[in-house]
This record gives sequence, structure tokens and C-alpha cells, in this order.
Amino acid sequence: MSERILAGTLREKDIDQLVLLKGWVQKRRDLGGLIFIDLRDKSGIVQVVFNPDNSKEALEVAETVRSEYVIQVEGKVVIRDEGTINPVMGTGKIEVMATDISILNKAKTPPFLIEDESDVSEDLRLKYRYLDLRRSALQDTFKLRHQTTQVVRNFLNDDGFLEMETPILTKSTPEGARDYLVPSRVHNGEFYALPQSPQLFKQMIMMGGFEKYYQIARCFRDEDLRADRQPEFTQIDIETSFMTSDEIMAMTEKMMKNVMKDVKNIDISLPLQRLPYNEAMERYGSDKPDTRFDMELIHVTDILADSSFKVFQSAIESGGKVCLLNVKGQAANYSRKDIDKLTDFVKVYGAKGLAWLKIEGDELKGPIAKFLTDEEKTGLVGQASAEDGDLLLFSSDKTSVVYDSLGALRLKLGKDLQLIDKSKFNFLWVTDWPLLEYDEGLERYFAAHHPFTMPVEEDLDKLSTDPGSARANAYDLVLNGYELGGGSLRIHKKEQQDKMFEVLGFTKEEASEQFGFLLDALEYGAPPHGGIALGLDRIVMLLAERSNLRDTILFPKTASASDLLTDAPDEVSEEQLDELSIQVKKKL
Amino acid sequence: MSERILAGTLREKDIDQLVLLKGWVQKRRDLGGLIFIDLRDKSGIVQVVFNPDNSKEALEVAETVRSEYVIQVEGKVVIRDEGTINPVMGTGKIEVMATDISILNKAKTPPFLIEDESDVSEDLRLKYRYLDLRRSALQDTFKLRHQTTQVVRNFLNDDGFLEMETPILTKSTPEGARDYLVPSRVHNGEFYALPQSPQLFKQMIMMGGFEKYYQIARCFRDEDLRADRQPEFTQIDIETSFMTSDEIMAMTEKMMKNVMKDVKNIDISLPLQRLPYNEAMERYGSDKPDTRFDMELIHVTDILADSSFKVFQSAIESGGKVCLLNVKGQAANYSRKDIDKLTDFVKVYGAKGLAWLKIEGDELKGPIAKFLTDEEKTGLVGQASAEDGDLLLFSSDKTSVVYDSLGALRLKLGKDLQLIDKSKFNFLWVTDWPLLEYDEGLERYFAAHHPFTMPVEEDLDKLSTDPGSARANAYDLVLNGYELGGGSLRIHKKEQQDKMFEVLGFTKEEASEQFGFLLDALEYGAPPHGGIALGLDRIVMLLAERSNLRDTILFPKTASASDLLTDAPDEVSEEQLDELSIQVKKKL
Repeated sequence: MSERILAGTLREKDIDQLVLLKGWVQKRRDLGGLIFIDLRDKSGIVQVVFNPDNSKEALEVAETVRSEYVIQVEGKVVIRDEGTINPVMGTGKIEVMATDISILNKAKTPPFLIEDESDVSEDLRLKYRYLDLRRSALQDTFKLRHQTTQVVRNFLNDDGFLEMETPILTKSTPEGARDYLVPSRVHNGEFYALPQSPQLFKQMIMMGGFEKYYQIARCFRDEDLRADRQPEFTQIDIETSFMTSDEIMAMTEKMMKNVMKDVKNIDISLPLQRLPYNEAMERYGSDKPDTRFDMELIHVTDILADSSFKVFQSAIESGGKVCLLNVKGQAANYSRKDIDKLTDFVKVYGAKGLAWLKIEGDELKGPIAKFLTDEEKTGLVGQASAEDGDLLLFSSDKTSVVYDSLGALRLKLGKDLQLIDKSKFNFLWVTDWPLLEYDEGLERYFAAHHPFTMPVEEDLDKLSTDPGSARANAYDLVLNGYELGGGSLRIHKKEQQDKMFEVLGFTKEEASEQFGFLLDALEYGAPPHGGIALGLDRIVMLLAERSNLRDTILFPKTASASDLLTDAPDEVSEEQLDELSIQVKKKL
Repeated sequence: MSERILAGTLREKDIDQLVLLKGWVQKRRDLGGLIFIDLRDKSGIVQVVFNPDNSKEALEVAETVRSEYVIQVEGKVVIRDEGTINPVMGTGKIEVMATDISILNKAKTPPFLIEDESDVSEDLRLKYRYLDLRRSALQDTFKLRHQTTQVVRNFLNDDGFLEMETPILTKSTPEGARDYLVPSRVHNGEFYALPQSPQLFKQMIMMGGFEKYYQIARCFRDEDLRADRQPEFTQIDIETSFMTSDEIMAMTEKMMKNVMKDVKNIDISLPLQRLPYNEAMERYGSDKPDTRFDMELIHVTDILADSSFKVFQSAIESGGKVCLLNVKGQAANYSRKDIDKLTDFVKVYGAKGLAWLKIEGDELKGPIAKFLTDEEKTGLVGQASAEDGDLLLFSSDKTSVVYDSLGALRLKLGKDLQLIDKSKFNFLWVTDWPLLEYDEGLERYFAAHHPFTMPVEEDLDKLSTDPGSARANAYDLVLNGYELGGGSLRIHKKEQQDKMFEVLGFTKEEASEQFGFLLDALEYGAPPHGGIALGLDRIVMLLAERSNLRDTILFPKTASASDLLTDAPDEVSEEQLDELSIQVKKKL
């Protein structure tokens, strides 16, 4: 008998071949004295037929197998009868007439069927992850993940990058998310931290003269989890010396173009669209706009500057805005009750209400119509390019609430009204980010990205005069309304980094205690440098068209950061804790 | 001005080109009104000349630069004068006549010179790791590491393997080295552990139906460090389903052949030599023999069975052995004092002494000669193929001491006498390992490799009758006396895994508590599977011909597991510990 052949690869060209197959029993059917087994391996499924004329012994063994048994089969590839051809299966025109079978391992009845449309609870699927992973949807997702990773690597390798490994046992630094800590046995009372990203190490690599670094890097954040967060996640981490932000963006675009071509066979055209942060907010109410459909925010503050409608008036007087969405042709489809539901939806985003108008013929109908002058009406219709049958939805509040609520409403309507072409992959850059954010409560600035981000050159002086208005030399890559990741040029001069820490409210001692090694390194010939980090899990989720980040991670954790398969985290022995000189405090 | 060009790539073909260079000042020399700067970037070094005739302004700026300044230079490639050609440098026939220079960043005087032969303390170099990394020896080592990794990936990708990521936050399991622990914030009093290897996860991947997995995997062991150990290390981690151990070894060999060809341009011939464990011990006194030189152990127990020399007598009577090394032609070069030193050396390995004989003409000279009969002398000379001028060094003790001491002595003599051809890369497999080791103190068996290792088929029954003599279906890959890694077939049947835990002294409850998920998985159609893991850091160390594992890790830790660059581990805030519900115990 020759070498094992993969079941899913068999075709008509293999007819009359003797083959050796190994894999799992997907399904067994007994029919008219024959036994049919769908044999599954990593390549797919083929039908195997056991016939008493071929081998009585094989038939007898085949009678004992159940779903998920691991078997080895020898047989001959034959053409199927015309009536039994299965056009859906790649192997559907042939079957294997078995001459021998051995059982390599038995299987109990699985707690759920190994099928793509499985409606069992996710917890059960996570506990038996190894069974869930046998489903073809997950098999395909991890093949796609592999392929994506390799395309990225090949691109970067060809571009002169070195793949390098940064430590997992690192130092805890504040100014970010919460760290996972690792107690040290050798240095009692001291802790390592798992890295939230290799940020400082990749900057050190630039200071080490390597110029082009990348890593498919594991990162860790001990945050309360949402559907699209995991305690450990993977990013494509890149850093370069001597490149401008334009060059870094151009390089990243080319990399993503290769990924789209190789993984999805989709051509994206370069250069990608770039939107300054302010423009993204103004047009889409979002810093990661989904541009697969229009319905942009329409600004009508000027038109309504003297509005007699109190809600508009007070928003404008306190420095806020009035914007609207024109929901084209939907006036008749949204009842007052439907609009009430939309009002509830925007309240989550801080809006106090949702004013609306319907265009009926030449007229504007709706509760606020009576507050509008003819001039205002004409202005609105003109600005909104409103036509008969359109529904206008207004938000008026301080700017951030208007953007947040209409941005979210726009996405909801896009989805509800099926305005989104799901075959589209709309990449774009968001640029010119604010460098700092002011926390009113704590009365201090925080770095919008991280404290090592370079301001844009024209705004360097603003760090002293008006930090809040300084823009970062930073860029985020957005796909279909998801942030894939972002990057920036980094500060490479000691004076600028000192200044940044000062603006962030660090004393010299605090800066030195936490980031002394960086400040030192900047004094020994740090090159101009910058980079980017893209979330691999997120990219795979979008390319595999999955809606859940957990489907893209081989052994994911639940929302309470548990691994249901191995039951981690778990209690450990007193000896282990003693060696680390730590003890668990009783809950009060 | 055109794009930046890499300094080290300039050659005679570039003469008359205008070039833009960016990099570091390796050295500045002022000579006869001219300034010469060796400009270094990741590609190498080129000499830049500043001449008042070309640009007085550039010359003035050049006067202010110091070592490790980051500069940008424009200029023209010209041929060097005959007398100033530097044949050692790739760029030695040309130089760049500068027309412009800008300083991109300044540098203080580094605490040590960026040169390959640096005699400063390793601690200082680790504190300023980013400066140390600029040395060409380290630059080359990390290029080699990158290249090795990519060759491995390309080979495995082409062979149908998927690269997959297993978790870093996992469950603590005993039966191995000490785990690094990570306290859970969500589940107070519970801990994750960092993985010592992805062993159980990669087995789960096989049970998930993927068949061919690999990962360049970070692993963690909280052990006291030796020169060749690090708290975190990287292994090439591979697992396959349905393959025999012969197939796994053949695949691994091919992979290493590719690495040797692509990285070192050395052809190694396949199949590699295989040595059963017992034979390796008998011939070399080592389970990872360095076969670049001979001087094998010579067994003379039979010849000396009736020896009147008490030391031999008692070793043999208590079931031990007498072996010797024949140090060819070295009798005259080893004084009694020299041999005393070798005696001290073998005592570290448990030997009580080192008997010796010198062959002088037809005679055996030395303190033990008088105890030997003529027949014994003839036997020894024959067995050892001893000739005039040879030195025979004897060890007699229980077998393990004889092997350990002569194995170590063999390596020492090989080195001292320069018997080792350093251009050789001798790979070999050590096979047929013992499955279990008996701990006399704890009166129980331990898994020699890990408890998931399959016994060789013929020895399956021995688990019940004579566990200590069962051999593992396991294989280690050895290069030049270093273990690169090893692997095995794994147990894939529930009954066998149950039996193994029983032999290891686990109650059913203990086995289920710690490895329940594995035992479960074995019941749901686990395929036959096995794999291998190779230490990447070690491979890079040997290929880069470095003697220190720390040179192969970008940001290594010291022997006390500290990162001197970032000062990790470090104290953390009370708030952080409170959130984790742990506290540090005061040392008593």
C-alpha cells in the first residue's frame, strides 16, 4: 500500500487508484447491506463504501464504528453512479470502495455534532474546544490566519525587515491599561509585568541600530473583557528608523494589499484614502468610519443659528452643534414608534432626544416643523439634498455627543436598511490625531496614544503654549468601521521627551523612575523612528467574515478571562506561593 | 536628492553617483584640514570625506560631530587614492565626498566603545543593551536568527504545516520545572501559569483535527539559571498526526538540512546517524555525544574481572564497571601533576579517583601497573589498541559515575588537545530513551521526558511488569555535543494514559484534577500523534558560533533573572496588589 493520501483531494483523475486514507468518521449510514462512511481529514471529506463483495471482514469492522472514530481505510477510487453524484462536495463524483479498515482510536458520542451550524452554547464548545475546532468553519479560519501571517512575513522579509523577539517578562509601567503581573521568586516582593505591547522594546531595537523590525507579538491587557477583547492578543508589530510617516503608511498599505490579494483574491487600489481625524468626526461621527455606505452627517448649525426651537437654541448657545442624517426615502417606513426606538438607541450615547422631519411632497412634517421658518426649511432641504420621502434625524448637543450619537445611529441604520455591501473591503487612514486628551476629573493631560508619540512638526511649540490643540504624527488604519491598528513617529530627542512627560504631569523623578532607560537611550544617538501595530486577531476576524474574536483565537478565554478547556486560572499549592513569598488575601 | 542608500552596499560600480546616507558616526578623524567620518548603518560602514573645497559649511558641521551621532550626509561616490584603499572593508575601494551634512540626533560619549572586541563587563553591556546591539557581531547574530527562523517556517509551510498560536496564560501543572505564576484579578486566589512548553495544547490541536502544527513558541521556566538557561526561551514546536517516529525524524532532518544549507552554506548528508541511548552512553559516556572526535570509552570490566587492584575489584563486585580513555600519544605530555588536575576534574562528576597507565615501549608504567597480571596487561593493550606513548585513564565505579566522569573528561581532553574540528557540524539522533526514571529518595517513578510519551510498541506490557526497563518512542537531536531538542510519539489511547499516570503514582482523582481535559480528549477520537521541539536559541548559538546563550536573545536576563536595561522585575504599587488580592510576605 502506498502513502496516505488526503481524503478531500480525491477527484475523477484518481479513479482506479488504490488509496490509503486516515481520518475521522464524519457520518456512517447503513443502506441495503452496504455501509457508507464519510471519512474526514484536514483536507475535507470523501465517501467510503463497504460492500460484502469486496471484504466481509472490512464490512464487519465498519459496522462497529461510530461518529468521530479515528480510522484507517484502504480501498479503490471508483466513479459514483449517476444518481448518487453530490455536486456540493469536491469529491462528490467519486467514492472509495473499501478493501480494509482499522480502527486507530474509538470515540464516545461527542456532546455536540461536529457541524458548522451548531446551536449549542459557546461555553460547551469552549470546554470541548478540540471538538469545536474540527468544524470546517474553524478549520478554514485558522488556515486563513496562517496564510495571513505568512503573507505579512513574506512581505516584510522581502522589504528587509528582521523578525525579532522581545521579552514577555518585562517591567510594569503605568500610563496604559492594567498589567498582568508575575511575582519574582529570586527577587521577593518584586514583579514582572506581561507586555501590553512591545512599544519600548521596539524603540530600543531602533536605538540598537536594526532599522527595520517586526514581530507577530503576543500582548496582554488585564481589562474587563468585551466581545472584541481578549486578555492576550496578537499584533503585527513593526518599527523602522529613518522613514517618514508617509513612507510607513505606504509600506503598510502595500502589505495589506498583498494580504487582500493572496488571502481573499481582492485587489485594493493604492494609495488608500486618508481622512484627518477632524474630518472623519465631522463627516461620519466616528474616528473609524465605515465608508461602505454614505449617509454622512449633515451640518446645519449655521442654518439654525437663530432657531426658535429651544433644544437647538440651547445646544448652539452653549457652543454645541446641530447635525442631521438624511435617511433617503425612508419617511414612510419609520412610524412614530420606530423613531421612538431610535431615540432610545441614541440616548445610550448621551443624546437627550432625536428630533425628526419627514419630507412629504414640498412639505416638512414632524413635531419640530412648526418651529422652523421658511428660510430655515429651505436651508435644511438644500443642505441635506432632501427629497420627497426622505427622513431627517437631528442631533443637537455638545459636539462630542452629536458625533457619538449620530455616528452610532448611522451604523445602525446602515445595517438595518442593508445599505452595506458586505463584499466591500474599505480601507482608509485616519490621520492628524489629537496628541493629548484632557481629563477634567483628574485635571491633567493624558497621551491620546502613548507618551512617546511625536507631535506633527508645526505643532511642536504648542506643547508649551496650548498642548490640547497639538496634533500627533500618528495614523490609524481602518477597515469597514473597525480600527485595525495604528502607529506614529516617536519622539527621538531627549528634550522633547522630557517636555512630553512634563506636560503629562510627571516630575523629573517619576519620569526617570519609570522611563529612565528610555530617556538615557535618547541621549546616545537615537535615530528618528516610527512604526505601526495592527491587530492580527481583528484582521483575521474581518477577512474570515466572523463576528466573534474568539473564533480567530485557537484557545480563547471567556468574558471572565477563563479557559474552560483546561480550567485556568486555578488554585495553586501553598508551596508555590511560599516560594514566591506572596499570599492570597481573604476577601473582606 | 534621490532615496537614501545603505552605506555598506556602496561599491566601485557606484562611482560618480550622488548619494544620500543616514546612520551613525562610527569614528571621526581630522587629518590635514580634511575630516573623515566612518558612517555606519545596518548594512555596514562607508568612509565619508569632508573637504573645504566641496563645502565649507558641511566641514564646519562635521567638526562638531562625535561618535554615535546620528547624521544624514549627501555626497558623491569617488574612488579612493591607491594608497588609502582598505581591502578589509567591502566599501574599501571608494569613499563619499560630502557636499552636505545634517545632524539628526546627538550622542553623549557612550560608556563603552561600539566595537567587536569589547572587554567591558557584561552587566554594563546589558544595561546599555541598545549600544551593545550596535556591534556588528550582534547585528550578524540577529540576522542569522531571523534567517534561521524563516528557513524553518518556509520548510514547514511548504510541507503543509499551519503556524498556530497557543496561550501564554495557562494552567499550572506539576510534573515539570517550576512555573511562573500570574495572579488572576477576576478570580481572586487563582493563578495562571506561563507555559513551560505548549505540549498539551499542541496535543489538543491534533485532537482538533489540524494534523500538522508548528509554532515558534515562547516558553518559560522559573529555574535557577546556568550559563545556557534563560527564564524565557524559544522553541521550534512541531506536532503531527498519523506520522511514525521515523517520518517525524526524517522531516526534521530535512528541515535542519535546509537550515544548514541556507544559513551556513554547509551540506549535511541524510539520513543522520542514529544512536540508541544505551550505545551513546557506552561509547561516549553521554546522551548527547560530541562526535566530532573519537576517543570513545573503552570497556575493560571483563578483562579486569579478577583484578587484584582493590578499587577495580570493589567497583566490579558491586555491579559497576571499569572503562578507560586512550589519550593517544599524550603519555609524555601529562605529568603526575597534570593527571592530579584531571583527577580533581572527574571528582566533580562523582568519581573517587582516576587510575592511569602510560605505555612506554612495551611496558605499562604507573601506580596501578604492579596490580596487573601479564594477561590483564595484554588484554588492556589489545582492547585499547594502545601503542607506545599512549596515556590510559581509568574510571571504575557504578556505571553512571563511570559514564559521567569519563564522558566529561573526554570532552575536556578533546578541547584541551584541540581534537575538535570546529568547522564540523555533527548532527545525530539519540533514540530508544528510557521511558521512566526511578527516584530512590521519593520511591517513585518520574517520566524521563513527560508523562504523555508513548512507550515503544514492544515495551507496552512492561508498564505493568517492569516499568523501569520500558523504552520511550522518543528521539533527541544532538549537534556537536549539545541537545538541540527532542520529541516523541504521544499516548493517544485513554487506557494507556491512565496506566501511565498509575505508574507515576497518581491517584485517579489527582490525574483527573490535573489532566482531566486531556483524559477526556483521548476519549473523543484522538488521532495517533507525535512531534518534536527544538531550542531555537541554542541552534542560533551554535550556528552563530557564539558561546553564550545571552548573545542570541535580544533582551536577555542575567543569572538572577533580571533585565538590567529596564530594571525588571521591580516593585509595584499597593493598588496593583490590592486588585489582585495578594500581598507580599515579609521574609522571616
